[in-house]
Amino acid sequence: MLGDRPRRPLKPGAGRPPGGRAGSSRQPPDARRPAPERGLGGEQVEGRQAVRELLLAGRRRVKEVVLADDLDPAPIIEEIEELAAESRTRVRRVPRATLEGQARSEAPQGVLAKAAPLRDADLDTLCRRGRDGQPPFLLALDGITDPQNLGALLRTAECAGVSGVLLPRHRAAHVTPTVAKAAAGAIEHLDIALVSGMPAALARAKELGVWVVGLDEAGEAPLFGLAVADQPLALVLGAEGSGLGRLTRARCDLLVAIPIRGRLASLNVASAGALACYEVTRRRA
Amino acid sequence: MLGDRPRRPLKPGAGRPPGGRAGSSRQPPDARRPAPERGLGGEQVEGRQAVRELLLAGRRRVKEVVLADDLDPAPIIEEIEELAAESRTRVRRVPRATLEGQARSEAPQGVLAKAAPLRDADLDTLCRRGRDGQPPFLLALDGITDPQNLGALLRTAECAGVSGVLLPRHRAAHVTPTVAKAAAGAIEHLDIALVSGMPAALARAKELGVWVVGLDEAGEAPLFGLAVADQPLALVLGAEGSGLGRLTRARCDLLVAIPIRGRLASLNVASAGALACYEVTRRRA
Repeated sequence: MLGDRPRRPLKPGAGRPPGGRAGSSRQPPDARRPAPERGLGGEQVEGRQAVRELLLAGRRRVKEVVLADDLDPAPIIEEIEELAAESRTRVRRVPRATLEGQARSEAPQGVLAKAAPLRDADLDTLCRRGRDGQPPFLLALDGITDPQNLGALLRTAECAGVSGVLLPRHRAAHVTPTVAKAAAGAIEHLDIALVSGMPAALARAKELGVWVVGLDEAGEAPLFGLAVADQPLALVLGAEGSGLGRLTRARCDLLVAIPIRGRLASLNVASAGALACYEVTRRRA
Repeated sequence: MLGDRPRRPLKPGAGRPPGGRAGSSRQPPDARRPAPERGLGGEQVEGRQAVRELLLAGRRRVKEVVLADDLDPAPIIEEIEELAAESRTRVRRVPRATLEGQARSEAPQGVLAKAAPLRDADLDTLCRRGRDGQPPFLLALDGITDPQNLGALLRTAECAGVSGVLLPRHRAAHVTPTVAKAAAGAIEHLDIALVSGMPAALARAKELGVWVVGLDEAGEAPLFGLAVADQPLALVLGAEGSGLGRLTRARCDLLVAIPIRGRLASLNVASAGALACYEVTRRRA
């Protein structure tokens, strides 16, 4: 079982300098200038679960639902049709090739919808206690570029009870149809703040009493046993490969690492994020 | 923050009947017949981490390493070249277009290798204590079809210290270049058994004293606090969407669920698998 091989030391960043991508200190000259191309996105939603949740959440206007005309009957398709009827949303049946021509994710499952863009939430509001009286539980995603990872992290955040997500306005993967599909509807329920710079946003969160905990391969404490889990908290995840940027890392009150038992240096960022989010959930239970 | 909406009940299988895909009771008439097309695969490995681990592990013959001729210098590329030189493996530099023409994953990162196929491990051996004296910690993946999910689960398994993986011979995603890349080298270190039928393999593991724990949205116990974590253990994950097959579920000693705090029914299978694997790791620490 190879148990006799020496474990290799952990290599943060897998060969890339950790600070190599940390360019978020440069702010645009006029932060008030509207940036319509840089909103959250989400105007096109693909996939069965994602479209069902869009209709079920009812948080934004749905322009139309498009279904392939050769779909086999399935409870979730019936549910989509019923929810669309309830909200008086137009449903169009089109040939599958037409739908797939409009789709931008790999496997739209014969279902897509067009909707008003997602509205972003206010950072200060997210840093306060929610209506349920629970301390805020934020997830800051600093530079995740893979849409599957971003979508999976949003899905996990919603399942774990995260109360708000921070995404950087200028570096994040936009909520594309692929992100929306991988998020399986989480974007309809989560409150997401777009922030101009992650280090500044984390500094602001700290001013408002939020503990900032970064996940980092070189973290000094183990993730498991996180002492501040029941406090107002922001978990920070860095980019695939390069990890937390230098300025973001400097804003963290605490850096924690996931213990690695095997012979690889690190987990996939979406898996690492699931462990971090649920560590908080588990300790708040 | 929508805290006033009622939480929807969990819907196992998201609309599909849980037993709908459970067809693994049909065995091939002659189980001794060699099935070269159904081996583990792994003959082509793409991506920087995956190729580095292939060379580093040294568990199988590497026929050649192919690098794009326009690669920027990077420590991991140097490491790949050094490891290839040490093992006298041929390195070919080719135009990037040639490499991408040969590649079968989406982003081979300018690096691929050709190697002897992965060899599968023996189920009975995996069910015994390892050389380190630890009780076996198995991960059974029953019908995961998405190569990104399969790769991420294998990467997590290696990081969590899983001692053996079970994959069904007739239903699994083969270890394609996309699986190998997403696994980031885990396939070079893990012991993987291909089993003819998952229910029969789990029955055999039980005979050998292994506790079989299925992850299921309708599970009667919460994942967190798993009492048998320090015993010989097999964690079982089902297919995306449909979950555990009926016959596989029937072989489980215990079904556990991940608590959901938000408004979605379930996590992505790779995220759920990370939580399950690390629950064992954490409790064995």
